[in-house]
Amino acid sequence: MPPHGNVTFLLLFSIVFLSWRICHGGKILVVPAEGSHWVNMDILIKALHSRGHYVDVVRANKSWYIKDDSPHYKTITVPGTDAFNPDFVNPILKRMIDIERRGSSLLSFASLLVEFSNTMINMHRIMCKMVTGMFEDKDLMNSLKEREYDLVLNDPVGGTGIMLAHALKLPLVYNVRWITSGEGHLAIAPSPLSYIPMTGSGLSDKMTFMQRITNQIFYVIWKAQDVFLVDPQYQAVCDKFFSPEVRYSDLLKGADLWLMRVDFVFEFPRPTMPNVVYMGGFQCKPAEPLPAHLEEFVQSSGEHGVILMSMGTFVSELPADMTKEIAAAFAKLPQKVIWRHKGDRPASLGNNTLLVDWMPQNDLLGHQKTKLFVAHGGTNGLQEAIYHGVPIVGLPLFSDQYDNLLRLKERGGAKILTLNAVDKDDNFLKAIQEVLNEPSYRMNMQRLSSLHRDTPMKPLDTALFWIEFVMRHKGAAHLRTESYRLPWYSYHSVDVVLFLAGAVLLVLCTIFLSIRCLYSTICKRKAKRD
Amino acid sequence: MPPHGNVTFLLLFSIVFLSWRICHGGKILVVPAEGSHWVNMDILIKALHSRGHYVDVVRANKSWYIKDDSPHYKTITVPGTDAFNPDFVNPILKRMIDIERRGSSLLSFASLLVEFSNTMINMHRIMCKMVTGMFEDKDLMNSLKEREYDLVLNDPVGGTGIMLAHALKLPLVYNVRWITSGEGHLAIAPSPLSYIPMTGSGLSDKMTFMQRITNQIFYVIWKAQDVFLVDPQYQAVCDKFFSPEVRYSDLLKGADLWLMRVDFVFEFPRPTMPNVVYMGGFQCKPAEPLPAHLEEFVQSSGEHGVILMSMGTFVSELPADMTKEIAAAFAKLPQKVIWRHKGDRPASLGNNTLLVDWMPQNDLLGHQKTKLFVAHGGTNGLQEAIYHGVPIVGLPLFSDQYDNLLRLKERGGAKILTLNAVDKDDNFLKAIQEVLNEPSYRMNMQRLSSLHRDTPMKPLDTALFWIEFVMRHKGAAHLRTESYRLPWYSYHSVDVVLFLAGAVLLVLCTIFLSIRCLYSTICKRKAKRD
Repeated sequence: MPPHGNVTFLLLFSIVFLSWRICHGGKILVVPAEGSHWVNMDILIKALHSRGHYVDVVRANKSWYIKDDSPHYKTITVPGTDAFNPDFVNPILKRMIDIERRGSSLLSFASLLVEFSNTMINMHRIMCKMVTGMFEDKDLMNSLKEREYDLVLNDPVGGTGIMLAHALKLPLVYNVRWITSGEGHLAIAPSPLSYIPMTGSGLSDKMTFMQRITNQIFYVIWKAQDVFLVDPQYQAVCDKFFSPEVRYSDLLKGADLWLMRVDFVFEFPRPTMPNVVYMGGFQCKPAEPLPAHLEEFVQSSGEHGVILMSMGTFVSELPADMTKEIAAAFAKLPQKVIWRHKGDRPASLGNNTLLVDWMPQNDLLGHQKTKLFVAHGGTNGLQEAIYHGVPIVGLPLFSDQYDNLLRLKERGGAKILTLNAVDKDDNFLKAIQEVLNEPSYRMNMQRLSSLHRDTPMKPLDTALFWIEFVMRHKGAAHLRTESYRLPWYSYHSVDVVLFLAGAVLLVLCTIFLSIRCLYSTICKRKAKRD
Repeated sequence: MPPHGNVTFLLLFSIVFLSWRICHGGKILVVPAEGSHWVNMDILIKALHSRGHYVDVVRANKSWYIKDDSPHYKTITVPGTDAFNPDFVNPILKRMIDIERRGSSLLSFASLLVEFSNTMINMHRIMCKMVTGMFEDKDLMNSLKEREYDLVLNDPVGGTGIMLAHALKLPLVYNVRWITSGEGHLAIAPSPLSYIPMTGSGLSDKMTFMQRITNQIFYVIWKAQDVFLVDPQYQAVCDKFFSPEVRYSDLLKGADLWLMRVDFVFEFPRPTMPNVVYMGGFQCKPAEPLPAHLEEFVQSSGEHGVILMSMGTFVSELPADMTKEIAAAFAKLPQKVIWRHKGDRPASLGNNTLLVDWMPQNDLLGHQKTKLFVAHGGTNGLQEAIYHGVPIVGLPLFSDQYDNLLRLKERGGAKILTLNAVDKDDNFLKAIQEVLNEPSYRMNMQRLSSLHRDTPMKPLDTALFWIEFVMRHKGAAHLRTESYRLPWYSYHSVDVVLFLAGAVLLVLCTIFLSIRCLYSTICKRKAKRD
């Protein structure tokens, strides 16, 4: 057989073997995050399961959102580990809401920063404990190795999955918006601070000079948090179980594929990378019929329609005085209101308002009677509002929620009320009325909806294609630059520019000295002759 | 009717009208470039026509490749204008080949640079004359306005279409790899010179310190050519017909969509932007059966198979001594050779070699008997070789050809012979034998082929989707940053960093002076007391 024959045979065999492997489903190890992050990871898992893949999910012993084995996955529970849960999260969030309500002063900003930093430290401590627990459990690690997964699917808001993928030598795919050190793009794509607003800064992509200064300061704060609070915790785990040459930040940046939970209908346009795939709104789907009692309530709204209100998974209770104000405002409206609310029933609640523990949010947002969505600004809810073209009144509580809402405000689809303004001067009622009565809000959200839906492939299908692509090719090295391995001064060509500037200076000095030398020689000769 | 009713009606009407417009086909004004660039624009035009769109093509009076009206398009011929044609191009190219054959010295590099700059100046002069001719012809411009095109589809290697789109206030879509000032990405995406090699530098994405210095120097040369030779020509046209506030470089960067003629199987991974869509290899398709005489010739090669050789559309003739050497090398091989060659029949030609004026390159590359492709390194040919998984011996002549071939060499699919080495020491024969006998070349090209073909949509369908997307939404503003409108010092945050550094210095100085003041006061008091 000529050499090419061998090659072709080998190649054909590999293709057939790979096809067989993928047709019969791959094996995926999922390392998710808690809370609302799990909600959308679960959607991906269900879709992967329905395509014949086998899924194992790593979770903490005291998990909050991640239920035990389901028809779609098996769990690998790490003994003796905590996770984010309401008892852990809610007191911190309540303190943060309290601080925010005091208004924006340097003191409240500093208090918020300290509270936020503490939360970050604690969160990453939990993650480090979890991954340490796994690495120390030889039996667990051996059994994971023996299962021969095809890839690790990870939400990198914590670093557990990143180090696990390295230990198991597996391709790594992110379901990501946040990484351990901030917004995901910051780690992988060039991010000029002149038009890329930092999370928490409350800035858009069009900034004045003073706003650009604020943005730069926020960047320094983020960077400092990463360098001093986050990175060292994970690096310590790397040092212990791998070697000091293995940099945690390199592992983080070296993922094969980044499935980003945004699209550019929502996010400001910005530089990106070939291995970043946008799947914003992958959880959205057409509305299904409502349960009979809800449909009856919705229909009873007549031509005025319905307002929805939900503050997301993390905060089920707002401060009592605020809920009272909100309930009173709703009571003055001709619309019907469905409010996801878990606390005491506010005394000022009107007959037009239905309190619910849970609501089929997507189906309600897609109902033609729905006129407005009062939201806290979590990405899941906002993407659903974009998908269904429903305008928003935003009540951001903490984290990225203001920044998320700002993206819709800038496109004319949302109005934002900060926490310290909600219960003053009928602000809440006025905001609702403005968004209901000014047609541009709805028009803009429907324009965003038409842009968002106009894609060659559905975002979920795109995500599934690329996850399977990484399985088929055992990674996606051709899409990934390794520029992050360069030291910062080389990456930014500081060394080259200094060298060239030095060379130019040297040439100029040589010319100057030569001319001076020549000149003085001529002068001397002239003096001798004279 | 309530306000929302009005909005919904307006929106529905717009959607119905747009759908009707698109279903019945849009109107596209194509401003192409000459030579091989036209070959792939023509493929896009045919595909657009087959989807029911009406296409007009702007061409020069003395056009080379762009034929008069076809079943797929009508031409708008601009009177009194030249275009690139063999008489214009070939003498320059022959001079450039002569210089290259002398080997790489500083003198030959400088001569090449001068020759290349002259070519650029002349090329852009032709384009400027063409667009000036159009703008001065009021009847032509009025008729173009009256036709109400949906968009301009342009190859921005020249600036004609860019200014035409601005004058007609139309969305602008590029079919692009090169812009008037270099590789397309340089104008739109951040391009750190530490790992993005400049065209002509012959560097890859992994560079030593000295190579990074070379790369920086190449960047300065490119930038200088743009600033001093290219931009002023087009800016003069802008000044004359628009206003000095309209910057040509802003118009160039402001296109709605960039359909890039590469993909990341071919191109090194690098930062990109949301409005850049990769359609590399959109011209590739499965091989069709060969004409009977060619099939017979190919089959006569037996187990040894066939070698193809083509030097592209621009250079049909190689220097006589070189063709003699190449023919003699081919004669020593057991393979059959099909050589696209237009000059005199070399005396050393063997019986195994068939000279042809033209060949069905795609069908031959896709034939199972084809073992190797001797190519000049034009993108079209290389993309076809990737698609069919055929290894390459590259003979780069000029322009980007060496850099293109380098991308395949780095992936182990090609061997490159520079012009000054072809006819020495049996180099050509040895290169052919190496690529034929070393299985890794074929294996690597087949791996690239499988990566290239593994996409959720065919590149041509992707391109068509996005062209129609721009028609449906009258642009793609949400995918485009307007950061290029910032002055360079703001874009790179130089002003912000200087301001903050100044502020920190001021604070430090104030503290220092206060301490000194305090210290001297204390000292004085002490002295008084003493």
